[in-house]
Amino acid sequence: MQTGVETALLQIFIIFLFAKIAGEMFKLVKQPEVVGELVVGILLGQSVLGIIGSSEVFDVLAQIGVIVLLFSVGLETRIGDLKKVGITASLVAVSGIVLPFALGYALILLMGGTAIEAMFVGAALIATSIGITARVLLDMDIIGSKEAKIILGAAIIDDILGLIILTLVSGLATGSFSLMNTSIVIVETLLFVGILIVLGTRVVDKVSGLKTVEQKKVFGPVKSRWALRYRTFYKKHDLLGKAYSKWGLIVVPLLVCFGLSALTAYVGLAAIIGAFFAGILFAGRKMSKPMEQKMEPMRAFFFPFFFVIMGTKVVVDFSFVPYIPLTIVLIVFAILGKLIACGIGAAHHGKRSAIMVGAGMVPRGEVGIIVAMVGLQMGIITEGLFSVIVIMSIVTTLWAPTLLKISSKIDEKEPFFNPLLIFRKNSGRSNG
Amino acid sequence: MQTGVETALLQIFIIFLFAKIAGEMFKLVKQPEVVGELVVGILLGQSVLGIIGSSEVFDVLAQIGVIVLLFSVGLETRIGDLKKVGITASLVAVSGIVLPFALGYALILLMGGTAIEAMFVGAALIATSIGITARVLLDMDIIGSKEAKIILGAAIIDDILGLIILTLVSGLATGSFSLMNTSIVIVETLLFVGILIVLGTRVVDKVSGLKTVEQKKVFGPVKSRWALRYRTFYKKHDLLGKAYSKWGLIVVPLLVCFGLSALTAYVGLAAIIGAFFAGILFAGRKMSKPMEQKMEPMRAFFFPFFFVIMGTKVVVDFSFVPYIPLTIVLIVFAILGKLIACGIGAAHHGKRSAIMVGAGMVPRGEVGIIVAMVGLQMGIITEGLFSVIVIMSIVTTLWAPTLLKISSKIDEKEPFFNPLLIFRKNSGRSNG
Repeated sequence: MQTGVETALLQIFIIFLFAKIAGEMFKLVKQPEVVGELVVGILLGQSVLGIIGSSEVFDVLAQIGVIVLLFSVGLETRIGDLKKVGITASLVAVSGIVLPFALGYALILLMGGTAIEAMFVGAALIATSIGITARVLLDMDIIGSKEAKIILGAAIIDDILGLIILTLVSGLATGSFSLMNTSIVIVETLLFVGILIVLGTRVVDKVSGLKTVEQKKVFGPVKSRWALRYRTFYKKHDLLGKAYSKWGLIVVPLLVCFGLSALTAYVGLAAIIGAFFAGILFAGRKMSKPMEQKMEPMRAFFFPFFFVIMGTKVVVDFSFVPYIPLTIVLIVFAILGKLIACGIGAAHHGKRSAIMVGAGMVPRGEVGIIVAMVGLQMGIITEGLFSVIVIMSIVTTLWAPTLLKISSKIDEKEPFFNPLLIFRKNSGRSNG
Repeated sequence: MQTGVETALLQIFIIFLFAKIAGEMFKLVKQPEVVGELVVGILLGQSVLGIIGSSEVFDVLAQIGVIVLLFSVGLETRIGDLKKVGITASLVAVSGIVLPFALGYALILLMGGTAIEAMFVGAALIATSIGITARVLLDMDIIGSKEAKIILGAAIIDDILGLIILTLVSGLATGSFSLMNTSIVIVETLLFVGILIVLGTRVVDKVSGLKTVEQKKVFGPVKSRWALRYRTFYKKHDLLGKAYSKWGLIVVPLLVCFGLSALTAYVGLAAIIGAFFAGILFAGRKMSKPMEQKMEPMRAFFFPFFFVIMGTKVVVDFSFVPYIPLTIVLIVFAILGKLIACGIGAAHHGKRSAIMVGAGMVPRGEVGIIVAMVGLQMGIITEGLFSVIVIMSIVTTLWAPTLLKISSKIDEKEPFFNPLLIFRKNSGRSNG
């Protein structure tokens, strides 16, 4: 009885098993699990073993995975924290967005790609993976340092700006590309994000307050007989309160997360953007910590599907050969772009800080892959270009810990004035 | 950008939202959530609104849902407990299996169905829903009573025997139906279940002991230089211990659950049987409670998909009209079969206990639907017959609380000798 469903079940088991084994192996050699899962995907996928082919079932599981992922990232993105990290983090973030985007955009245009293609590659070069960077800093025991704070602050800003740019780019992709159109999409995007956060925060405040405030505060003074009856019924059964205390930490976030994702997809943007802002709505509140813990089993189950399925979409057979030069140039641009731009942003803290911050901003991790996935789903970038971006994300992620360790050995006192110096030193380093 | 994946995402949100709303509404009127979710499925499905059609994506999500469900049921099925419930529960369980199976089997044969079809309908009439019964007993505040203990013990035995019979029937369905074949499948089934439990229990004992026993106990005394090196490495990194403490409560059960499900499907049985025995392996151990808590978000997310998707497969348009007489007879048989057979099994405890136990065993809940699903997946029963079984499950589930409440009002002292008395009284009751 090997029906389609039973075959899918066996494949789900295979994906889950190998993803967990690879994840543990990569952790053992101090590399991010994510990379292990991507490698498993490449091995199971079309180019090597061919065990996992393209299927809507896995695309949907991967989509649920990336929605849960972005929700979790959002849950850790406290907008309030950004006020504390100050000017340096903002400088690092903004310059670290401008240069890589410009490099990627120019590279693809020069190679004969369309403006929209170029924008997607540029956008894939923007975002820094908070998760990976934080884990490396934690492993190196420098999470409390000045540099770590700058890196993490800048990475959060990067995430938000990166997703706004992705919103913009995916909005532009559905219309024609003109200055007028661009302006409209920018205004739409800002309005959408603004409304989402302002309205959403109010609703969350209202609901999350239920357990602590008196119910009459929620419903106001009694005005009519019907209102009284309703309130008596409501008080007796404590509907919302009961529902929230039992389901609040699982069902409510899942509903908000999938609801906003579906809404964002409905208005023509990438679904993950809704999931990210759904996370932001709950971030920093008293329920965000238990909510994160409750979401852990969902993360453990769904994350591997996203990364493994993305891996299976990577083409590494002979058809990839023409893309090798582009891949190498893009990797060099991805590393140098962040090193130089973020280094300059933090240059006033001295050479060591500048290089450390630059190195810490290099790993693209999941965010680069998410941008590539959106581009592939929208039919804007080809499978070849998708593979280039995934490989770039893997390489920058693998390099980052090494770069960080080397730069942390630089004498703290050494001043840093000449931006060109870092360029020469690090281009030499990244070739060796 | 309404790709297939984005449409699926919107449908996932709709299913999840309405399932939760209906679940809460049904709980409010003291009815099981499950019924609310099934009704939402029928409304969203092909016959009424047509929002959720048949798709492999949802079949896979429903399959994951039922696997998580059976794993959870297994996790609560402590084989050790069965020794305590004694003879009455076993009598109730066995007679409550024989009569409904015989009634269902004979009915379908008389109506011109095949032997295999008849067996599936018989099997769907066997199992009692532990979850629903337990919740009703809890709501009535009689969970500690003698009758409740008999009902729950018998329901556990029912579940195990019911799934063994399903294994048998689904095994028979793949081969030809003969006495020789039946014997082979019985032996195979018992061997498979036996090996699963004996081997599985040992492995679980070994792994679950890791955190409490000394590691040298696991590995034995050091014999060679390599063993020493391995142990030093192992101790230093505490690989298994670390993996278990971090992942043990989520990843290990998920791996075992999906692994055994895939294995059971591979040997030609229903995947859910593997999931159920995976749960039994962990049941009653010290990790079963925290494991259940960790699985809660998975249950909250996946359960609605199973019941809603099963609901969408129910046909309630004009093509169902010829099935109405069969549905009514099957519902009467389903209620009377359990009332009479289980009542007789508990008759020596007096009239009240007999009728209460009989009424408590009536709800089929999820288990009847699971049997129907397996039959539909294997192409043995038609969509019409599937709909009949689902409706039977809904009606028996809705009736059970009422029957239980009426029977609990009977005087406890009243003796009960004549089995025919209960038949006359209750057939009158179930018609009114």
